[in-house]
Amino acid sequence: MELVFLGTSAALPSQYRNHSSICLKAFGEVILFDCGEATQRQLTIAKISPMKINKIFLSHYHGDHVIGLPGLIQSMDFRSRTKPLHLYGPKGLNELKNAILHLGYCSIEFPIILHEIDPKEETIIFENEEYLIKGILTKHTVDNISYSIVEKKKPRFLKEKAIELGVKEGPNFGKLHRGKNVRVGEKIITPEEVLGPPREGIKISYSGDTRPDEKMVELSKNSDILIHEGTYEEKDKEKAEKSFHSTVKEGAEIAKQSNSKFLILTHFSTRYTKDENIEKEAKNVFKNTKIAYDFLTIDLSEIKKD
Amino acid sequence: MELVFLGTSAALPSQYRNHSSICLKAFGEVILFDCGEATQRQLTIAKISPMKINKIFLSHYHGDHVIGLPGLIQSMDFRSRTKPLHLYGPKGLNELKNAILHLGYCSIEFPIILHEIDPKEETIIFENEEYLIKGILTKHTVDNISYSIVEKKKPRFLKEKAIELGVKEGPNFGKLHRGKNVRVGEKIITPEEVLGPPREGIKISYSGDTRPDEKMVELSKNSDILIHEGTYEEKDKEKAEKSFHSTVKEGAEIAKQSNSKFLILTHFSTRYTKDENIEKEAKNVFKNTKIAYDFLTIDLSEIKKD
Repeated sequence: MELVFLGTSAALPSQYRNHSSICLKAFGEVILFDCGEATQRQLTIAKISPMKINKIFLSHYHGDHVIGLPGLIQSMDFRSRTKPLHLYGPKGLNELKNAILHLGYCSIEFPIILHEIDPKEETIIFENEEYLIKGILTKHTVDNISYSIVEKKKPRFLKEKAIELGVKEGPNFGKLHRGKNVRVGEKIITPEEVLGPPREGIKISYSGDTRPDEKMVELSKNSDILIHEGTYEEKDKEKAEKSFHSTVKEGAEIAKQSNSKFLILTHFSTRYTKDENIEKEAKNVFKNTKIAYDFLTIDLSEIKKD
Repeated sequence: MELVFLGTSAALPSQYRNHSSICLKAFGEVILFDCGEATQRQLTIAKISPMKINKIFLSHYHGDHVIGLPGLIQSMDFRSRTKPLHLYGPKGLNELKNAILHLGYCSIEFPIILHEIDPKEETIIFENEEYLIKGILTKHTVDNISYSIVEKKKPRFLKEKAIELGVKEGPNFGKLHRGKNVRVGEKIITPEEVLGPPREGIKISYSGDTRPDEKMVELSKNSDILIHEGTYEEKDKEKAEKSFHSTVKEGAEIAKQSNSKFLILTHFSTRYTKDENIEKEAKNVFKNTKIAYDFLTIDLSEIKKD
């Protein structure tokens, strides 16, 4: 399980920072959060195949978070993709798809499945056996969804207890671990008898673009990793207020209030060319902070070893 | 006067090559030819301000030549541009502009002026006192315009002859050089009396995406620099034929047939990771060849010193 920052700039790209996109390699999938211009090239440089992406969660429809979609989608088609691509995002997704499909000659042969959502309250947007993704609208100039990804970690399988109950090592172990009953002679063994207590999976939260928001604090409660935007330094707080962004310090305060373990700040204005100030401002509030840079890779198994 | 290759890849970008775009810094302007994805970032890396771009000439509307437009245009607006931007290209320009303006929330406050052209014959597309740009449709799967830029170089000003005729050094020298008559006592001195023979300006031709085309040979006749696509190596000629592209060798043959002085090949498939083969195939046909790479910069004053 890895988190790869493909782009960490705000509205404009710089020599060092591309537009926003975050890639989660987990659950046998590649999931993108936002897709700024040139995300497909950043994927190529990071040696991540665009063909493995099944789902893209878009925070909002400002260009710096979505302009990478036409190129990425056209390249998927060029590589003869047939499997569906799922796009999740706030209202306006259909219009966005139309613009994508009309940007230059292209005919896309694989299905693009839209999931337009309007989560005024915290809403589960996707769920399967392994993880769920929930989201809520937060405070930007246009509809912006902040997301949380929560791993559903299976309880440990208590092998010795199973053997004690007469279950033989083999396929029955897997069945019980997957939550199914097993028969041993006349007895029915239930998963509850051989599984440990519930375990918390990893939780990652991502703000998209937003002013500091109580709803973001709630959504990201006890995150292992909180990814929050920090477009401005504190001295430019007025600019942050005016454009509905957060300062670095405000991002750090959300980490503190949400009791997150680890903060990664991203989405920096190109006016700041040195990370030192940003890091100092954040760490004054929340020590366990990292300043994202393009291709920063976080090994999630190192974050939550339990 | 400089030519900067911002992107030299074909349909897909690679770690080393971005999508197609060529920048001409000349005549006090910055002119783009094609605008593949992430052209705005390539400009930033090359330290060329996007605000100086007045004209963009598009060869055709495949994504790898136009997907950089929405980001570039939205960033121009973000930087508070007010002066118009002129887009030139084949039929379909209006639909392209519509898609650009609907790709995410944006409101563009400066005029985007469209020049949709359909040059079945060689046509002058733009002309002023300093240069002209002509174009003609060549052979691709969709309408593709190949372009030639021809500098109008002023004849030399024959200073000694002017002094001999009684013209005093000063503003009158400039007037005569700009083609205006000047009075010296009772006499009228005409430019013809003090100007040297006509001089040829620099000529640069650019193929866009095309099969080898006799019309391209005509258009690029006696070019100082011919920029031709060379998507495939000769062993993949069938692929070139099928997709209406040129091989490296075919590009070199156009340089030879057009009596061009210098060939720059560009638009390479990512399947080729080494330039040596490409260079060898081209130079076997046309010795004075350069294989373009991203940020290759040609000082045009070195090309035509006369």
